[in-house]
Amino acid sequence: MDNPDKLFNRVTYIGKDNAEIQADDYDLQTPVGEERRGGRLGDMRYVIIRPENPPLRRVGSGMLEATEAAEIPEGRLSKAAYWTKRALIGVPLASAKAEHERLSKFKALPLLSSDAISSVAFATEAILINLAAAGPAHLGLTLPISLVIILLLCIVTISYRQTIPAYPNGGGSYTVARENLGKLPGLVAAAALLIDYVLNVAVCISAGVLNMVSLFPELHGSIVLLDIALVVLVTLLNLRGVRESGSIFAFPTYFFVINAALLIGVGLFKAYVIHHQPFIGTFAPMKDTVFEPLTVLLVLRAFATGCSAMTGVEAISNGVPIFKKPETRNAATTLTIMAVILGTLFLGITLLAMTYGIEAHPSGNPTVVAQIALKVYSNSGPFIVLFPIFQLAVLGILALSAETSYADFPRLASLLAHDGFLPRQFSFRGDRLAFSVGIIALAIMSCILLIVFEGSTDALINLFAVGVFIAFTLSQAGMVMHWWRLRGTANNWRRSIMINGLGAGTTAIVAMIIATMKFMEGAWIVILLIPLLVLMFLGIEHHYHVFESERTTDVPAQPQQIKHRVIIPIDRLDRVTIQSLSYARSITRHVTAVHVVVNEESALKIRQDWMKWQQYIGEDEETHLLLIESPYRSLFRPLLAYIDTIRKRHPDETLSVILPEFVVAHWWEYFLHNQTVLRLKAKLLFRPGIVVINLPQHIRGKQPALRPLPW
Amino acid sequence: MDNPDKLFNRVTYIGKDNAEIQADDYDLQTPVGEERRGGRLGDMRYVIIRPENPPLRRVGSGMLEATEAAEIPEGRLSKAAYWTKRALIGVPLASAKAEHERLSKFKALPLLSSDAISSVAFATEAILINLAAAGPAHLGLTLPISLVIILLLCIVTISYRQTIPAYPNGGGSYTVARENLGKLPGLVAAAALLIDYVLNVAVCISAGVLNMVSLFPELHGSIVLLDIALVVLVTLLNLRGVRESGSIFAFPTYFFVINAALLIGVGLFKAYVIHHQPFIGTFAPMKDTVFEPLTVLLVLRAFATGCSAMTGVEAISNGVPIFKKPETRNAATTLTIMAVILGTLFLGITLLAMTYGIEAHPSGNPTVVAQIALKVYSNSGPFIVLFPIFQLAVLGILALSAETSYADFPRLASLLAHDGFLPRQFSFRGDRLAFSVGIIALAIMSCILLIVFEGSTDALINLFAVGVFIAFTLSQAGMVMHWWRLRGTANNWRRSIMINGLGAGTTAIVAMIIATMKFMEGAWIVILLIPLLVLMFLGIEHHYHVFESERTTDVPAQPQQIKHRVIIPIDRLDRVTIQSLSYARSITRHVTAVHVVVNEESALKIRQDWMKWQQYIGEDEETHLLLIESPYRSLFRPLLAYIDTIRKRHPDETLSVILPEFVVAHWWEYFLHNQTVLRLKAKLLFRPGIVVINLPQHIRGKQPALRPLPW
Repeated sequence: MDNPDKLFNRVTYIGKDNAEIQADDYDLQTPVGEERRGGRLGDMRYVIIRPENPPLRRVGSGMLEATEAAEIPEGRLSKAAYWTKRALIGVPLASAKAEHERLSKFKALPLLSSDAISSVAFATEAILINLAAAGPAHLGLTLPISLVIILLLCIVTISYRQTIPAYPNGGGSYTVARENLGKLPGLVAAAALLIDYVLNVAVCISAGVLNMVSLFPELHGSIVLLDIALVVLVTLLNLRGVRESGSIFAFPTYFFVINAALLIGVGLFKAYVIHHQPFIGTFAPMKDTVFEPLTVLLVLRAFATGCSAMTGVEAISNGVPIFKKPETRNAATTLTIMAVILGTLFLGITLLAMTYGIEAHPSGNPTVVAQIALKVYSNSGPFIVLFPIFQLAVLGILALSAETSYADFPRLASLLAHDGFLPRQFSFRGDRLAFSVGIIALAIMSCILLIVFEGSTDALINLFAVGVFIAFTLSQAGMVMHWWRLRGTANNWRRSIMINGLGAGTTAIVAMIIATMKFMEGAWIVILLIPLLVLMFLGIEHHYHVFESERTTDVPAQPQQIKHRVIIPIDRLDRVTIQSLSYARSITRHVTAVHVVVNEESALKIRQDWMKWQQYIGEDEETHLLLIESPYRSLFRPLLAYIDTIRKRHPDETLSVILPEFVVAHWWEYFLHNQTVLRLKAKLLFRPGIVVINLPQHIRGKQPALRPLPW
Repeated sequence: MDNPDKLFNRVTYIGKDNAEIQADDYDLQTPVGEERRGGRLGDMRYVIIRPENPPLRRVGSGMLEATEAAEIPEGRLSKAAYWTKRALIGVPLASAKAEHERLSKFKALPLLSSDAISSVAFATEAILINLAAAGPAHLGLTLPISLVIILLLCIVTISYRQTIPAYPNGGGSYTVARENLGKLPGLVAAAALLIDYVLNVAVCISAGVLNMVSLFPELHGSIVLLDIALVVLVTLLNLRGVRESGSIFAFPTYFFVINAALLIGVGLFKAYVIHHQPFIGTFAPMKDTVFEPLTVLLVLRAFATGCSAMTGVEAISNGVPIFKKPETRNAATTLTIMAVILGTLFLGITLLAMTYGIEAHPSGNPTVVAQIALKVYSNSGPFIVLFPIFQLAVLGILALSAETSYADFPRLASLLAHDGFLPRQFSFRGDRLAFSVGIIALAIMSCILLIVFEGSTDALINLFAVGVFIAFTLSQAGMVMHWWRLRGTANNWRRSIMINGLGAGTTAIVAMIIATMKFMEGAWIVILLIPLLVLMFLGIEHHYHVFESERTTDVPAQPQQIKHRVIIPIDRLDRVTIQSLSYARSITRHVTAVHVVVNEESALKIRQDWMKWQQYIGEDEETHLLLIESPYRSLFRPLLAYIDTIRKRHPDETLSVILPEFVVAHWWEYFLHNQTVLRLKAKLLFRPGIVVINLPQHIRGKQPALRPLPW
């Protein structure tokens, strides 16, 4: 990654033995030579004329800088496209501004942890649903399970707190695993995360929309449409750049946090202070229904599902560079705050569920949190208004938790691209310093998911946690190696290893539990997808390697070594052909003009013109006219055959073929010219020896017609 | 049109003051320089090694000839395509063979008059149907109407007999009208004919298929499919070349002629010799049906429809060049024969219809000829077999009469193309010396018609005759002018004028009658289409004119005048870039390498490498490295801005831009490279000043990787 604030140290121009060079065309200091006669006789001076809004500014000898004017395309259509883009995502931001784009803790928190925090809205429910299978008697187990998960959260958080200072440029699982465990583990982590990010967007968007639809049922027909509209909206907001999206997304997160906190506070207060509720976690027994016995398996499954609460925890350690400086400290603090919020809310909601004996509806409607809110705020007079407000807050955070993916996916993709595992384009920052390609790729893939699953992505929730925990494990393990390397040098490296080791161990176990528990429900898809993605990464890396190392063209590296030979196919000898010939001659005297004879008259004409031209140009041993008779009337093949023969015959020479490039005003006009030239060009492309020189030929607009030949 | 038998007079090569030049690479006489030590010490000799099947043969100094080997493409796919083509349309024919492709009268007759003759099958019916409206009482009028049409036929034939010797290279209406009346009338005639040819193909094919279907009703579902299949078949046959199609199509025509003659003979014999039938042209009166009164209008409409019998009469005068020499006499004779056959058969069928009191079924099924045949051959013992045979003959001639269009349309199109009113491609002869493009165009257009009208093209029959008669009129009028010009010089020019004048007059009247009578039925389409086509012709002509006269490229015509300047965009300084640079330097010392800075590291690297390279290459005042900072991270726009600025600044220089041309193994690999180069190329195309030099760069296959930089 280029470091923006160092990017614009001037790279000064190096000329002949490092001397500054006098103003010259390669930098644009030369005045546009408009001559003005000065006051005294014979005295001249230059007047420098500059366009008022130049596309290039001189910023040092041999250094230009493109101004914003350079960005604006010519051509009506492309101009229109440009301005629409501006309207949608705002004016381009200079790389130098990258610094201003960084975020305060306050703004980074919602951006990077909305995903994690949003899980409060369904984690408890997930556990309850699983336990319900064993009947209400055991629903109480929800609390201990939640406690385990929270413990897990603490461990993961603490170990990530160690990762952040170690990797100030974003210690995502990919980076950590790659640097410490090697390429393959790194790529596995990357694959796992990318998959998860896409899933997350799809799930969150659809969850949000489903909530909306449950409020306005008439929208039910157009769910997929709403999904995609929402994706497009979020995408545009993100294309506007990190900073703006940060501000936009801040509100809903905090709004939810406050509402949830309020709910918990009020709820517990009512239960324990007002009603002195004596007991907790006991549920109304159901009659005459058989339940499967409470097995370890069942508990584990409940636990596995609950772990979905931890998706998105690693987002912060991944996004360190978007924090204001000092990045690492800010990031670490934010991580802690996030963990605390998540833990408290999760615990609180679970407690309330236990206290009020809430059971999860298999239909998932009303949701557990909704039931809680209703119970808490019901018969509390005016406070009842807090119920719909809370519902809105839930809707907001759900729809928004997609944002975490948008913040992280492009960043991760850009890292991969930078290391050559994804197409380069992923590492370019767009107009607004956001990684546009990554953002758009994410949007497209989640749209596909949404369309395929027709907006109901419950199935996908099961695919979720696996990837996250694989990533966790790998990065923690990576950190262990990291500390091991630094043993001795880093103080209290032992403690660090302990912590990360613990993290790695636990997350590994959890990952395995989830994988096994959820395998049939769809985890297998992820298990299958990861290696495929890794293969793709490797394939791309291979291509780039081969491309970098074995790219070649058969031209000597020393100008002096080049033996030129130029071939010009000509259909007649008109002004343009003669210009081409003279271009050829200005490269080398060794020129052969080739005419394929399909009709005698024109051949004779060319011969006469050629003689005239030779006299005009001064005759020359090495410039020849070659006529090739084509008994089968094909122009293309004989030419190609000749070029190939010459090339085989003179491997030592650099063969250039000059071809005209017709530029016509209307697309249909292309049909009026036979396509020999284009076909020839296409063929020559695949012959590494041959340089193709295009002379663009234009219909000159309002000019006098048919200038005569020079003689 | 190039005259094939003169085409291969050797065009001898003109070198320095007409001296024969010593063997040189431009002709392939130089031995492949394989050095062999001879017997005696220090004595060397060359051994000339030739490929056993060379694509090019030397046929004179400075003259090569492409052999058939040159025609065979490389590349698996294109090879496959090539051989399939061979299988379908046969081996390519050398232009020299054109002579052998010409046709005897016997073969030309069916090829050029099947259209005209086939109309015997429906002309009578067309008249009857129209008269039927006035009730059976007036059906007798069919005979006089037919006689008028036959008279018309005679007039037209005679006047065309005068056209043929006057225009031995094919005196189609287009040529005649153009040469004598001017461009516009010529184009109108051409448009009218082209339309008619397409209509003819569609109508004939569908008529044939409908007949077939009436024999095998189970095919009814797939009429359109059969149509297209038939079109494809006929097209392939025609692509095989004039000669072969001639032979293939001879049989059905003669078969029909014989059968029809037989039918007429037998029928008349039965009626008048055996049964001594006393009366003719009286029909069983129908009861209690009201008929519209017999009006002049009605008669005229009947006449107009009947004139469809004359479509295709001008085919022969159009196709003179495909006759064996002496073309003109053969063509004239053939024309007469054709007219006689057509006249007799038409008259005979009408007579029979009258004799046997045949009425046309509104449904058109069974057809009039079918009814006649049935009546004639019924209760005649074994002779009844002649009935189905006759039906087959009809089917054959109908399906085949499309052939006339196939023979004439491409020829006419090639004339138009040659005069620059249609794309050049129409004037090229294909592998088999047929005008492939025209043939294929005709096939496509009639297929479209067939698909649009779902194979039932009754409606189109009404559009038919108009075009033909417009063409007739124009060509005859043209001939009048022709003779008027030759007055005095040509003997009995007065008679000629008389004849052609008569022809012109009558056909003009008929044309008007048809146009008015059939206007609502669809003639208006033709009347509308003709001017549109003419406009297209003029548009194309204009384009070619502008293209020929105002095509330009901003390169001086004198090599000495060219002031080179080369710009090379570079992303880094690797082996390939250095090769590009050295190519640039071999053209001129005035080279600027431009690097757009988006990331400092690479900029610094390039700077260092540049210094190394300068030392390596020998430092140079005029070769510069220019760094352009791109604060908005775009590579493409700043480059373009720089190139434009330089160009504005130095209109006197010839600016060349060297761009790499990546060639990758798999299509998907293109996504791995950002498209800046391609976009740049596309943009530069539209700047006439700028020459684009492509250095193709390849992934070298099984070669050792990463050769080091030269230093």
